[in-house]
Amino acid sequence: MRCTVPETIPPAERTRVVRESHRGAYDRETIYKILDEGFVCHVGFSIDGQPYVIPTLFARVGDAIYFHGSAASRMLRNVSDGIPVCVTVTLTDGFVLARSVFNHSMNYRSVVALGKAILVDGLEEKLKALHAFTEKILPGRWSDARQPNEKELKATSVLRLPLTEVSAKMRMGPPEDDAPDYALPIWAGVIPLSHTPGAPIRDEKCDPAIPTPAYATHYKR
Amino acid sequence: MRCTVPETIPPAERTRVVRESHRGAYDRETIYKILDEGFVCHVGFSIDGQPYVIPTLFARVGDAIYFHGSAASRMLRNVSDGIPVCVTVTLTDGFVLARSVFNHSMNYRSVVALGKAILVDGLEEKLKALHAFTEKILPGRWSDARQPNEKELKATSVLRLPLTEVSAKMRMGPPEDDAPDYALPIWAGVIPLSHTPGAPIRDEKCDPAIPTPAYATHYKR
Repeated sequence: MRCTVPETIPPAERTRVVRESHRGAYDRETIYKILDEGFVCHVGFSIDGQPYVIPTLFARVGDAIYFHGSAASRMLRNVSDGIPVCVTVTLTDGFVLARSVFNHSMNYRSVVALGKAILVDGLEEKLKALHAFTEKILPGRWSDARQPNEKELKATSVLRLPLTEVSAKMRMGPPEDDAPDYALPIWAGVIPLSHTPGAPIRDEKCDPAIPTPAYATHYKR
Repeated sequence: MRCTVPETIPPAERTRVVRESHRGAYDRETIYKILDEGFVCHVGFSIDGQPYVIPTLFARVGDAIYFHGSAASRMLRNVSDGIPVCVTVTLTDGFVLARSVFNHSMNYRSVVALGKAILVDGLEEKLKALHAFTEKILPGRWSDARQPNEKELKATSVLRLPLTEVSAKMRMGPPEDDAPDYALPIWAGVIPLSHTPGAPIRDEKCDPAIPTPAYATHYKR
């Protein structure tokens, strides 16, 4: 499969969608939209041949992903040494109920990015990444909260993964059954799924006189 | 850190929670509850030193995880040869808004399982795994849908990962700020997050006379 869309990332051998290739996408617009809707990524790395997969917060800034962690964590101790990573972001959109068990599926959108993550050293770039993490999830929160001081910035580990080897894979729409199964008297369709915020829970130690900010009461993803 | 809870899995060096060790858990009850609430896992494996992380459906049956895929996929071609895997399940429960940017966090529950996944050969065991995938997500659906035939079972790839090296990590509750920050006039608390089902969307090719089943209209996770 070759990409035919403009503004695309050449599908390298390692990121080409092999299985159900019609579900693959390589254009930055599609890929970045998925990345910007997600907030947790799963970072894969290997130590002595054993893969590890760790969930962590992330944000896209331009043509790179920043992801979050601590210099103390097993993951970052190794990734900072230059171990290759895979960063995967998955959005689950619905359960697909086909007439046959075999054709049951999920509607989803996912992005897989491969490459070498680089430990961010500069405090200014770390600050930019923290700003992106916060503002991505809660626009407006950054300026309300107490800003990071130098000690905190030094204690924060941030990694940058350039988005060079990356692809998306998606499934959307109704079930797809084998032709003879359409005649069966079985309900078929999709149960949509969404990530829904609840009413904000004020910290018991938070002065009741401080109003709940709009980005918390009207939180939308 | 040593485990002190009964019914626990000895925290092997590789699955011990190192960073913020108070968030680690090793008892099967906690671990299995997280696994049973999740429906998508992220499977990590390595090829030629490059890690890959792929989302896929899974279900726990007893002391093992079954996960789903196709014999045609890059993942299973390799995993079936006995490459070690890491299966990670993450539930995101809320955004934690601290007074300082630095202490912002997520409430989450996650499980990391390491080991060698084994390709399931027997049709009976495959059927058991498919039953678990379906009934876990939609109790009652299995008997309504058209059952898998032998050809479909043969075309389904299922892997089994015994839950021997496994641990959970969680964050719950309100923000934790540095002592001096509690005096700041900044709202702090948690925005809960949940995975919410929407109204079922009937397949356009589905006879309107077929009633929508209760497990779809009253879907709850």
